[in-house]
Amino acid sequence: MTLLPDSSNRPRSIESRNNLTVKRIRNLHLRAERARTGLYYIEGVRFVAQAIQHRVRVETLVVCPPLLVHPFARKMVRRQQRAGTPVLEVTPDVLHSLALVDDPQGIGAVVHQRWEPLEQVTPGDELCWIAHDLVQSAGNLGTILRTSEAVGGAGLILLGDAVDPYDPAAVRASMGALFAQRLVRTSVAAFARWKRQHGLLLVGTSPTAETDYHDARYDAPTVLLMGGERKGLSPELQALCDVMTRIPIVSRGDSLNVSVATAVMLYEVFNQRRTSA
Amino acid sequence: MTLLPDSSNRPRSIESRNNLTVKRIRNLHLRAERARTGLYYIEGVRFVAQAIQHRVRVETLVVCPPLLVHPFARKMVRRQQRAGTPVLEVTPDVLHSLALVDDPQGIGAVVHQRWEPLEQVTPGDELCWIAHDLVQSAGNLGTILRTSEAVGGAGLILLGDAVDPYDPAAVRASMGALFAQRLVRTSVAAFARWKRQHGLLLVGTSPTAETDYHDARYDAPTVLLMGGERKGLSPELQALCDVMTRIPIVSRGDSLNVSVATAVMLYEVFNQRRTSA
Repeated sequence: MTLLPDSSNRPRSIESRNNLTVKRIRNLHLRAERARTGLYYIEGVRFVAQAIQHRVRVETLVVCPPLLVHPFARKMVRRQQRAGTPVLEVTPDVLHSLALVDDPQGIGAVVHQRWEPLEQVTPGDELCWIAHDLVQSAGNLGTILRTSEAVGGAGLILLGDAVDPYDPAAVRASMGALFAQRLVRTSVAAFARWKRQHGLLLVGTSPTAETDYHDARYDAPTVLLMGGERKGLSPELQALCDVMTRIPIVSRGDSLNVSVATAVMLYEVFNQRRTSA
Repeated sequence: MTLLPDSSNRPRSIESRNNLTVKRIRNLHLRAERARTGLYYIEGVRFVAQAIQHRVRVETLVVCPPLLVHPFARKMVRRQQRAGTPVLEVTPDVLHSLALVDDPQGIGAVVHQRWEPLEQVTPGDELCWIAHDLVQSAGNLGTILRTSEAVGGAGLILLGDAVDPYDPAAVRASMGALFAQRLVRTSVAAFARWKRQHGLLLVGTSPTAETDYHDARYDAPTVLLMGGERKGLSPELQALCDVMTRIPIVSRGDSLNVSVATAVMLYEVFNQRRTSA
């Protein structure tokens, strides 16, 4: 096998979907299993390369040599293997049994989640942090990470039971921003303490707030606090905010997608900072 | 049956998933069938009520009396029935066979698509129009419609083979904005003629454009021309634009989700207009 030259003593590719290791990886599609193991599964050349570039810890590379046609990808696998990363070779059928995308491009990886304890986060000169409560769509969460990365946001603080950012749909929608953005999960009480301790400007949004988001000033260090898809911020969270802002909407009874609302806020902060700089 | 008092002479609820009418409705999940018939299928109390409120032509109401528990919904069905709308009664099993959502709430509707010929569109005092090329995700298209509705945009002009706005995922993501927004599908050539004829300001976006989107002025009547998920505007379309703008991104090699990019542009136009008004 020319792809993996030092593999002559290894067993052949795993051919069974019921292989225990394969089953264990497939179980990472389930939130409970991701929570239990602290791992998640990514797929495709682009995502695996981005994860490695951002120094995400790879537990196992999953490789299907006949499908891994991209020279860049073959080289990446060889380099990882030389560096000691375990490589699991599987047949096309087994790779597809792990895949959530139509075209897994011959490669996947089991990688380690990265969470930071809130106590160790000191807001610095990044654009802002985003705190989210009750986001339910993994796709929305991934899109929010992508936009935060685009404007130079630090990352996401998830309060309570928000969706898992390591859900495959979130990984995909983030387009790799997940590997670069910082992630914290915490309680409302700990979040409130942290906000006071660092003297942060906490900005909430609500359709009924008095202050137009375009009139508010977002001086660093700012944390944007956004609600979920179904309902806005709870009274408890609103009470924590230094200012509540409203993104105006002209149509009756309508609202914005939560990833759109977050993006509109992020670009407002971004535009103010670069204009005043 | 108390729900539909004048139904005493009608046959009982359709019980078979293989009923021809049921099959015909289920086929509306397919783009080709929607294109052939000019119809689409919507589900749930909220969507059906919004469609009726926006005077979307209903071909058939699909009702499952045992599941239709909401008094408002039962009243709506009675009112539609009195007005002569055909009502198809089905069993819970048949309704679920039509449904793409987990909870179809006892009601669905086959409704008529609404397309406008571009020649009949005269840009007026609405915020702007959005033209889209090559959008591939129905969810993104629906989110774009929702944001356009929120800021008072007129609607969407789809060039070439963009995704179908009547795709169930687009309908759902639009949260009803689909029923209110205007929709045009046309060719690039016809679009170019229309733009010249009305003296429109055509604004394109590209990551490599020189003009920052926040520095450009968007005087009415404006059309925002956005690319698809995979690649930006073609050179042909860029050449049509009066100004090409760039939404700045600070992270290396990154990009924005197309519905986020459209929202950022829309709120910029919106903020300029209301500030200068």
